[in-house]
Amino acid sequence: MTSADMVGYAATVVGTSMMLPQLIKSWRTKQMHDVAAGMTILFLFNCVLWLVYGVMISATPMVVANAIGLVVAITLVGMKLYFHDK
Amino acid sequence: MTSADMVGYAATVVGTSMMLPQLIKSWRTKQMHDVAAGMTILFLFNCVLWLVYGVMISATPMVVANAIGLVVAITLVGMKLYFHDK
Repeated sequence: MTSADMVGYAATVVGTSMMLPQLIKSWRTKQMHDVAAGMTILFLFNCVLWLVYGVMISATPMVVANAIGLVVAITLVGMKLYFHDK
Repeated sequence: MTSADMVGYAATVVGTSMMLPQLIKSWRTKQMHDVAAGMTILFLFNCVLWLVYGVMISATPMVVANAIGLVVAITLVGMKLYFHDK
């Protein structure tokens, strides 16, 4: 593995775990008024596209990371819709 | 360019523009109470790592996209700090 590969893997891990603090905070407070809906939807598309890319180039770690990211993204979008009127 | 490359480029564009709706919303409302600080900081690290990776593999579009993403990230972290007590 080259040093560039290592940076790329670190970036993948950071990128897919990025929304975990938001998920935890929103779950605890049940408040998402200040969180942009567009951001949660773009994160969902981001995970879908990287997942498809991972499958196409047969990069298993990328597929696993973005499958987890996708679950987080769907949960966030759902929470944004559900907490909308609260 | 293969179809996998095209999906990868689309994912890069979506990933780096992901925070734009959040930036616009937070700028307008001056409210970031519900936005997790950890999420803005991880997005900043995400952009730094992809920027470094882009430089290492000499991928100019990736460098440009993540340089823009980094400016967005720094602005978001700054806004989160500045709007904290409001």
